Order: sequence, then C-alpha cells, then structure tokens
Amino acid sequence: MTFGLARRDVRPKVPLRHGEGDKHRLTSLEGLAALSLDALSSVAYGPEAIVLVLVAAGTGALTATLPITLVIAALLAVLVVSYGQVIAVHPDGGGAYAVAKKDLGARTSLLAAASLVVDYVLTVAVSLAAGAAALASAFPALSSHLLAVCLIGLVLLTAVNLWGIAESARVLMLPTVLFIVSILGIVVIGLLRSHPAAMVGSAQPVHATEALGVLLILKAFSAGCSALTGVEAIANGVPTFREPRVKRAQRTELMLGALLGLMLVGLAVLIRRDHVAPRGGVTVLAQLTAGSYGTGWAYYATNIVVTLVLLFAANTSFGGLPVLMSLLARDHRLPHLFGLRAERPVYRYGVLALALLSAALLIAVGANTQKLIPLFAIGVFIGFSISQIGLVRHWAVQRPPGWLRRAVVNGTGALLTTLACLVLLTTKFLEGAWVVVVAVPLLMLMFARIQRYYTAVGAELELGKIPPLPLRTAKSLVIVPIGDVSKLAQHALTAALALGDEVVAVAVHADPDKAQALRETWDRWNPGVRLDILDSPHRSLVEPIVEYVQHAGSGGRQIAVLIPEVEPKHRRYEILQNQRGILLATVLRARTDVVVCMLPYRLSL
Amino acid sequence: MTFGLARRDVRPKVPLRHGEGDKHRLTSLEGLAALSLDALSSVAYGPEAIVLVLVAAGTGALTATLPITLVIAALLAVLVVSYGQVIAVHPDGGGAYAVAKKDLGARTSLLAAASLVVDYVLTVAVSLAAGAAALASAFPALSSHLLAVCLIGLVLLTAVNLWGIAESARVLMLPTVLFIVSILGIVVIGLLRSHPAAMVGSAQPVHATEALGVLLILKAFSAGCSALTGVEAIANGVPTFREPRVKRAQRTELMLGALLGLMLVGLAVLIRRDHVAPRGGVTVLAQLTAGSYGTGWAYYATNIVVTLVLLFAANTSFGGLPVLMSLLARDHRLPHLFGLRAERPVYRYGVLALALLSAALLIAVGANTQKLIPLFAIGVFIGFSISQIGLVRHWAVQRPPGWLRRAVVNGTGALLTTLACLVLLTTKFLEGAWVVVVAVPLLMLMFARIQRYYTAVGAELELGKIPPLPLRTAKSLVIVPIGDVSKLAQHALTAALALGDEVVAVAVHADPDKAQALRETWDRWNPGVRLDILDSPHRSLVEPIVEYVQHAGSGGRQIAVLIPEVEPKHRRYEILQNQRGILLATVLRARTDVVVCMLPYRLSL
Repeated sequence: MTFGLARRDVRPKVPLRHGEGDKHRLTSLEGLAALSLDALSSVAYGPEAIVLVLVAAGTGALTATLPITLVIAALLAVLVVSYGQVIAVHPDGGGAYAVAKKDLGARTSLLAAASLVVDYVLTVAVSLAAGAAALASAFPALSSHLLAVCLIGLVLLTAVNLWGIAESARVLMLPTVLFIVSILGIVVIGLLRSHPAAMVGSAQPVHATEALGVLLILKAFSAGCSALTGVEAIANGVPTFREPRVKRAQRTELMLGALLGLMLVGLAVLIRRDHVAPRGGVTVLAQLTAGSYGTGWAYYATNIVVTLVLLFAANTSFGGLPVLMSLLARDHRLPHLFGLRAERPVYRYGVLALALLSAALLIAVGANTQKLIPLFAIGVFIGFSISQIGLVRHWAVQRPPGWLRRAVVNGTGALLTTLACLVLLTTKFLEGAWVVVVAVPLLMLMFARIQRYYTAVGAELELGKIPPLPLRTAKSLVIVPIGDVSKLAQHALTAALALGDEVVAVAVHADPDKAQALRETWDRWNPGVRLDILDSPHRSLVEPIVEYVQHAGSGGRQIAVLIPEVEPKHRRYEILQNQRGILLATVLRARTDVVVCMLPYRLSL
Repeated sequence: MTFGLARRDVRPKVPLRHGEGDKHRLTSLEGLAALSLDALSSVAYGPEAIVLVLVAAGTGALTATLPITLVIAALLAVLVVSYGQVIAVHPDGGGAYAVAKKDLGARTSLLAAASLVVDYVLTVAVSLAAGAAALASAFPALSSHLLAVCLIGLVLLTAVNLWGIAESARVLMLPTVLFIVSILGIVVIGLLRSHPAAMVGSAQPVHATEALGVLLILKAFSAGCSALTGVEAIANGVPTFREPRVKRAQRTELMLGALLGLMLVGLAVLIRRDHVAPRGGVTVLAQLTAGSYGTGWAYYATNIVVTLVLLFAANTSFGGLPVLMSLLARDHRLPHLFGLRAERPVYRYGVLALALLSAALLIAVGANTQKLIPLFAIGVFIGFSISQIGLVRHWAVQRPPGWLRRAVVNGTGALLTTLACLVLLTTKFLEGAWVVVVAVPLLMLMFARIQRYYTAVGAELELGKIPPLPLRTAKSLVIVPIGDVSKLAQHALTAALALGDEVVAVAVHADPDKAQALRETWDRWNPGVRLDILDSPHRSLVEPIVEYVQHAGSGGRQIAVLIPEVEPKHRRYEILQNQRGILLATVLRARTDVVVCMLPYRLSL
C-alpha cells in the first residue's frame, strides 16, 4: 500500500518543488499506474488465498470460491464508494493516520500509524513472495529456491532505493497496461474456450480435514480480502493529482474498483468452471494463465509481467514509509531526524530498516505468501476500518445533506472490514497473527513514549515562551590543543584569535625531552599566545586536556576548545588522520559544557 | 609471545606511573610468571609436533624424538645465552623491532614488526587450540567440539580484555608454579615407574608413508622448535623488572631456559621409553600425564592446569599487541591513533582486531594446533634471527672485549633459527606457510606506505620549520542555526556573542506560515541578533544552511557555525536528539572550511 505521495515526491534527487507546475502531477490514468499497482497486483494472491482455505474441506468445497468472491467484490464496491468520500473530505491525502488524527483522537491515530508501519513491511514481503511464486510458475527450476529469489529481489529493490533512482508514473504505465490486458485476457479467452488449453504443475492429493461450515467460509472470505489491499492508496495520494484533483482521484478510484472487481469475479468464474485446485509448483493464477493462453510464449510473458508488477508493488513501500515516518516525526512520534526525509542519510536509514524487517519476515515464513497474508490483511483492514469509522464520525458531526445515507455506507464498510479483521485475528492467531498483536501495541507504545519525551523536553526548553535575552557581556577563552609548531598550529591560532578574547595553546607530552624541545621551538616562533604543556604519564592525550579544560573554570567566560583537524583529500587516508581530534571532541562533549570547535585544514593528498 | 611490557602496564585503568616506585616492578620469580608462561606452555604442543612429523615414517621413527629434542635443547641454550646478551645491550626492552631499528635499518625493522604482528595473532590461536586439546583430553565429550571450545575461550579473553581487568604477576604465580610442578612431576614419576600407569585415548593405525630421511628429520626439528616460542619475551620486558633489572632479567631468562630444557628433554625421554605414538582424542602430553599419574584426579587436575596456563599464554598477546602498535604508531608506521593506547576506545579496537583475526585463523584450520604451528614458528623465528643478526652487527661495530666469541654464539643461533625458518617455509608452504609469506610482505608494505604518507603530510604542514605568525586582525562571524525561540536559542546566542564579532541566526522553514510565526516571535523577543529565515522547498534542513554558509563568503572574516545541541541525560534518548545537529556538522565539515562548533545544552531527562 502506498501512503500519501507518489514515489518521485520523496526522492531527494529530483523532488517536486513546492507549487511547481501541474505538468508533473498525475492525470487519472497516470494515477492508476502510480497508485494502483499494489491493489491490482493483489489478484496474484487473493483468489489463491480463498482456494487454499476452501480446499481443506475437499475439492467440492471449491465451488464456494465464486460466491465468496462476489461478497468480496461487494465489499470492494463499498470501499470504493467510501474512499470516494474520503477523497472529497480529505483532499490533502494522508490516509488513515490523517483521518484518525482529525476525527478519532490521538490513540486511534497511533493505532493507524502502527498498523501502517506493519503494512509497509508486509507489502514488501507479500509482493516479493508472490512475485517469486509467479516467476517459479514459469521457470520450475526456481521453485525450490523461492526464498533466494525473494531475497535477490529485495537486494535489488534496496539498491535501487539507496541509489535513489527516480521513477515516474510514465515508467509504470507500460507494465500496468500489460498486466491489466493480460489478466482480462485470461478471463475473456478462458470464458470463450470450452476447456482449459493446458494444465501446468503437478496434481496434489486432497485430504478433506474440515467440513465446509460457517467458520471455514468466514476464513476463506477473510483470506480473500487480501485481494483488496491497496485500494486506499489513491485516497492517500490525492495531492499528487492534477487539478481538479478530487475529481481525478475519484475517477481513478472508480477505475481501480471496476478493474479489480472485474478481474476478481472473472478469475473466480474460471476457477469454478475449470475446477481449479491447488497444484504443486504453480500458482492458481498461473494455472488460469495456462488454461487460457496455453503454455507457449504468452504463458511465460504473463508470468513475467505479473512478477514485474509485484516487484513494483513492493517498491511502493520504499516510497511510502519515509513519508509516513516524516509525518510521525513532525507529530513528535518518531525521532525528529525522520522529519528530514529529504536528507539522503535519513532516507537511507528508512530504506535499510524496511529492507531488514522484510527480509526477516520472508526468512521466518520461508517466502510462503499464504503465511504472510493474514498478517498483511489484518494491518490493512485496521486502516480500512479506521478510515471509515472516521468518516461515520465526520458525517455525524457535520451532517451535510444525505449524511445518513453516507454514514450507513461507511458504517457497513467499517463493519465488514472490522469483521474480516477479527476473523483473521482469531483464526490465524497461532499461525502468525500474534505477530501483529504484539507489534502494533509495541509500536503504539513507542510512539506515545517518544511523544511524551518531546513534550517534556519542550517544557524544559520553554518552547512557546519568550526566553530571557542572551547575554552580551561574556568574554571568551579559546583553548587550542596543538601537537607541534607547524602550519596547522598557525592556521588554528589564527582562527582562535579571531574567535576568542583570550587564546591559549595546550600540548600534551609524556616525554620531558620532547616537551622541552617543543617549548624552545614555541619560544622561537613566539606567536604571542601562551603555551601550556601538560604532562601525561599514562600516554593519554585526552585525559590531561579534559582536566585542563575542566580546571580552566569559566569565571563568566565562554570557554571553547578549538581542535584543528587535518583533512586528507582522499577518503582512504581518513583513518590516518583526525582520529585523535574526534576522540577528544567526543570526550569533551560528553564530559564538559564547553563549545567544541572543529577547524578543517585540507591537505593536498 | 609478549612484547615489551607486562600486562598491567598497558591497562588504562591501573597503569604504572612514570617513575613510580620499584615495588610494582617484578622480581626474578615474578618475572617468570609474568613473562614466561608463553614459553613454558609450549611444552604442551612442541614435543607433540615432533612426534606427529616422525610418525609419517612409522612408529620406529619415533626413536628420533630424543636426539631431535636434544638439538632443540642445544638451540635453546644458544638462545638463552643470546638473549642474556640482548638484555644487557638493550636494557630498555623492545624486542626484535627495537633491535632491528637500531642496528639493522628500516626495512629489517619492518620485517620484524610484520612478523611480530603475525605472531601475536598466532599466539592466541595456537594457545587456544592447544588449550582446547588439553581440555578435551580430560573430557573426551569435548573432542568433537574443539573449535567451539576455542571460540568460547576467545570470547572470554576478549571480554576480559575489553573490560580491562588488571592482572598482576602475582595472580599468575600460582598457575605457573602448579604447571611447572605438574610437568616436572610427570617426568620424575614417569622415570621412576617401570611402565606407564595408564593408557588413554584410542590406538590409531600407523601407516609409514615416508622414509626417515634428512628431510623428515629437518621437518621434525623445525616443528619441534615451536617449543621455543616465547623465550624472547623476557628480553622484551626488561623495563618491568626491579633494579638491578638487567641482572634480574638475565636470571629469569636462565631459569626459563633451565626449566624449559629440563621439561623438553624429560618428556622426550619418556616418549622414547614408553614408545608414545599419536593416539586419538588425547594429546601426547596427556598420554604422558596418564602414564605417570594414572587416570585419577591428578590426570584431570594436570590437564586443567595445562589448559589454564595456555589460556593465560593466549592472553599475553592482548597485552603485547597494543604496545607494539603504539611503538609503530610513534614511528609513523601505523595510524597515529594507535599511539594513544591509554585511551580506552583505541585499546578496544586493538583487542577486537586481534580477536577477529585469531577467530578467523582458528576457524580456517578447524582449531587444529598442528596446522598452526608452522605459521607460528616461522613468525617467531624471523624475530629470533633478526635479534641475533642485530647482535652480531652490534658486536662487529662496537668490538668490546670478547666480541668475537659473542658474535660466534649469536651467529650460530641466527644460523640455526634461520635454517629452521627456511625448512618450515619450504616444507610447509602449501600447507599454510604461504599465509605468512603473503601476510608479512603485505604488512610491511602497509607500514611503509603509511610512513610515506605521514612524511608527505609533515612536509606539507612544514613540521620542523617555523611557520609564519598567526594573524591577529581577523574578525569573526558566527552563524547560529536555530529551530525555535527557546532557552536553547538563548543559550546558543549567548555563546555566539561571546565568540563572534558579528552573530547571525538562521532558521530553515518549508512552511511560509511557520516562517512568519517564527519571525513575529523573534521580533517580540528582539535578542539584538539578525535572523535570516531560509526557504527549504525540499524539506532539507542541511542544504539551505550549507549554501547560506558558503555564500556568507569570508571577506577576511573567520566564519564559524555554532550548532546548539540538546544533550539528553539518559543515553537511550540520544536517538531522539542531536541527530540533526550531527548531520549538519558532518556536511559542513565535509563541504566547507568554516569552524564547526557544537554547544551542549544538558537536559534534566
């Protein structure tokens, strides 16, 4: 699921300038490519999730796939209408977190934020796992190396994102169109054929272990709801559309709903007619592909397109998570650092954290898509429920014309998504859903504690109050640690004399002879600055200087230590220089309250 | 092998003060405990090395163990006399590196340094591997987990050294005495018995694959010379002895020679008489232990004492390597950083590097002592040869009374050790000795390149020349990045006003409304300092400030950027603060030549 903004908006290299012309913004069709890949690609694992649950009651139970899919399609319709309203009410985007913050209070917004973080990680993991399965359907040799394929894909995505290659909606147009055409082609050609063109994969024995009861149907429904993940992305990204952006975004949402609904129902009809059951080594979608296109080039091409689109879907998280983190940082719920997502190092932390968490998940489940789906769906459905409950609240408070009808639509949606969420939580608790139950509250707690800390710091710094005026009378003493009489010392003293009312040089020498030699050279140089030579019996450089600085007292003076640093031109020499200065600076900053100044002296080598 | 000083001298926590009373220095006996463990513990693997080489020519060839050991004992006598002379000529200690630097020129001293570094790593690896074998002889269950035992021991040693627990010679007295008594007891009781008290280990079939020729005898001799590793440590550590330190050190060297010779020859006699051959799961020393003491408590106790002493021997490297590294750093052959070995972080780098390299070696050879011994002996023998060739050179130049006799003794020693070194290099080249052949020149090259770099830097800084006088006329401009009007801003401006002739505050705001609000608050505060608000369309904090600083130009003024930093009281909050300041400081230092000042503001939480 994407959050907030399209990819290119978060890339440090080619960011959109504030108020920059509309031409870089998205049309309705481009919006479909940029913001719907995650949702559309869900057809690669959603229908399969239903089939895999139902088969527990034997192949006969698979006939329930179609009615369950129709219910899911109805829920999709409710969600599309609902998100059309979210778009109108929140034209600034922001998703469940923004809605909850505005309409449902702090605690719910923490829940929304936590579930969104979980979702970003799971989007990456699920999309990669499903992509690996799609690729292995075309190339069976890969099927025993699914985890390796996933991790290679993850490394690829991480590298691309660390590099920061900008990706435009136009790049995504071609795979999106190919994907839609391929899937709809499967449905149309499949319906025209009297029987499947080809079978792929190996038949698997089916042992019915459960009866087709209400619980199993509820489980299949909940698992199938994973096909709906991602439909919220358009509402989150309204600001990236061209004007009239609300209209365009609503149109894109409608297109997404129609396409996704058509695909899901069409695939379900084929599944029922052709009695598709799970087969070894291939996905359900690959079976349907072979059934319509045969096993020629079109089979390979379709599987590759599906893989590619799933890879792009995984990539949306790398754009979305930094945006969410910067929103949370601005609300003091994450380290302020993450508010600086335009800074490359900060952006990279986010990318790496996301990659590591996804890798951990993929390894934990052995790249099995179906094991990740309950976790994924729970997170997404918490967001769905929050958004819709927020809207119900909004209608109840604002009461615009027709508010009751709208509230009923959103309320129904909220009820269904909450139900799906609860079913998944209870039926899949021991099979992995507990991870969400543990992770979400922990994240909420962390956000809350960070916020409490920042509030306390703000109070201590008296933010929002006018502080006393700064003093203008203080004199300053600048202490300059030096090693030898050299151009470096001259450079440092020049800077120190400009900054300080009084300047003193200090040197540390363990060897009395060397100390004497330095004293003599200093006197010959006679720079007009006092030199104090400190004894260091233990060969420590840092300790004598720290003690000297501590004893220099302040006497109302501002004390600064100016550390000259030789900066090699080539990075490979960095280990040879500066380390002493950095060590001294670190200890001084930890143990004294003086100003620590670093002055670079650039070498030519 | 230990280098230079006893352990406690290198520990940051309780270092010896320069000129501190003699009572902390070593007596002859304490010197044996502090500086001879490495050498004495060699009996755990030296005799075994001979047996394992000879057995290739069948069990009959094992009779050659005794004559080979007698030659090694003779070499030991030469080395002891030789090192007695080294002690007299170099009462300041320093070992092969110091000798080579003084008498043999720069290139040889690089060779000495490189071989010493290799030795420190190998001392740790060999002692741990031999210790694990000794422990497994007592507890056979461990014999299939030797590598794990080694790595656990290594983790233990590393932790103790990172912690920096001071260890005194007195702590080592007890295990040293127990070790000497146990080994001599094996010899004496063994000789009194008519036949071995007990057999341990499983018999192994012996297939003679080689004839007992000159080459095999040379190989056995060279491998057995590993029993001599460590005899140089006393000469390296002369300064740690009490006055008269030369006398005391020479006496300790003699004691070591006598004890080690006695042990080696005694064990060889027992090996011959009892026809000891390699047996599975136990060391040769353990077989001899069982032969003398039986397999009761004394067997276990002896093996544990041997293990303990080997662990202490491994530990000597952790004290010795930092001393060597600091000597090299003072000669500009390692990063100057390592000259600061009294600083805890620096010391820790050395400990960790040594631990990682030893772990790599242990893993590479699967904790097999005998595979490490050739590498170890080569490194040590390079040092032996250099020390003695240096002495020959010394006698030839100084020509004191009796110089020719002394030169012949040292020359013979040098010849024998060089021969052993060459035999090991050629016969064990493919079995691991190539590692030394690769590592030593690479280390030498690195030392030489580092020295060349420092020389070039010294020339550029005009070290040794009197530089021009520092300028006194420069004015200063201090730029203070601020976020809000708060006590932090007040604190920073007070410091800046003390340091700068002119002060200007800068703030970065992406949001025009917030910028306007800040401007109004600033005007109400009216601190008498100009505030420049920078636009940041990309939400970058760093880039606008860097550009601002770059455009501030200098105009002959010294420019400083003063970054106020909130310092949390608890470390766990550090991720929440400062990150922006550190980021800004890093970029400013990399891309501008201004003084970067950090001002701490300490929070109460």
